Amino acid sequence: MEEVSIRTQEHQAFYDITGKVQSVVRERGVEDGVCVVFSPHTTAGVTLNENWDESVQHDMGLGLNAISPSRSEYRHGEGNSPAHLKTSLIGSSEMIFIEGGELVLGRWQGIYLAEFDGPRSRKVFVKVLAGSA
Amino acid sequence: MEEVSIRTQEHQAFYDITGKVQSVVRERGVEDGVCVVFSPHTTAGVTLNENWDESVQHDMGLGLNAISPSRSEYRHGEGNSPAHLKTSLIGSSEMIFIEGGELVLGRWQGIYLAEFDGPRSRKVFVKVLAGSA
Amino acid sequence: MEEVSIRTQEHQAFYDITGKVQSVVRERGVEDGVCVVFSPHTTAGVTLNENWDESVQHDMGLGLNAISPSRSEYRHGEGNSPAHLKTSLIGSSEMIFIEGGELVLGRWQGIYLAEFDGPRSRKVFVKVLAGSA
Repeated sequence: MEEVSIRTQEHQAFYDITGKVQSVVRERGVEDGVCVVFSPHTTAGVTLNENWDESVQHDMGLGLNAISPSRSEYRHGEGNSPAHLKTSLIGSSEMIFIEGGELVLGRWQGIYLAEFDGPRSRKVFVKVLAGSA
Repeated sequence: MEEVSIRTQEHQAFYDITGKVQSVVRERGVEDGVCVVFSPHTTAGVTLNENWDESVQHDMGLGLNAISPSRSEYRHGEGNSPAHLKTSLIGSSEMIFIEGGELVLGRWQGIYLAEFDGPRSRKVFVKVLAGSA
Repeated sequence: MEEVSIRTQEHQAFYDITGKVQSVVRERGVEDGVCVVFSPHTTAGVTLNENWDESVQHDMGLGLNAISPSRSEYRHGEGNSPAHLKTSLIGSSEMIFIEGGELVLGRWQGIYLAEFDGPRSRKVFVKVLAGSA
């Protein structure tokens, strides 16, 4: 298991970690397998989405704010319940196949740490499982 | 890794790909393991849900439209930001266990390609990981 | 594959199954690998979130009800379409790494069965994949 560190700068933003994950895969030298990227946080998740036009990430953040706003009935004292809910909606991990030693991503797909309660020091764990049937 | 192709017919719809995934698993001849189904697209995901009453898929599409509508503040020029957000909410992959050479799904569970920006030619990648502890 | 049973008591609630999953991992005696937790239901999912302050789970339930309410246009006769949609949003499975024979979870992370249409008898499947590259 490798740890990748990310220092987030915003309260909410998507950070492209594709290059860092690909580096871990290359170091492992696995030709065929699966790479798992996992966030150990409860207010930051991992997702795959478009890496070409940054406005997609802007729009996703805006849409998530509309889906999971602050609500007066919320009880959690830290006030970050909207971030907890966003994390469970987006998810804590992604799996990406490895073929020929490289991540198999779609043409427009990047791997993102989704920060919902920053800025903070975050990390993701990366594990490479070798082999397939 | 196997590729499964799906020609979607609607702008938004759920396509049952359970049979196609099961075929890949049978070809592999793996008795015990895990099957991973992955969408390389950023406006189409993969999900598990009820395969008995089609009205469930109708209702899920309707609910997703209410959750992720077009918003005037969106910037992405292609106009499909609602589809990008739906994809990150639903997710890009699913894992299903294999026992006795067959997918282990609940009685009502099917595997669906969730099209959010069709009609298009789509594909999903299927990988079978053999063995468990 | 192991089966973990949960008798849910509420229509909607989050049940902490971390200890039960950890027990399965310990029985397997796997030092290094990945644990997959899978819900075979279409109105109950699996998610990771904060296990310290129970008000987080309260708030997540309340937020999910706002996101996925009953809608008059829904067709599914059983009336539980909001629960089906919540399940696809939250997801049916989680992957957690194993190092030194223990689940690798963040300080505040617990594994939850998310019940959206209880009370019912539910189960989750747990599989341990040994090894990594």
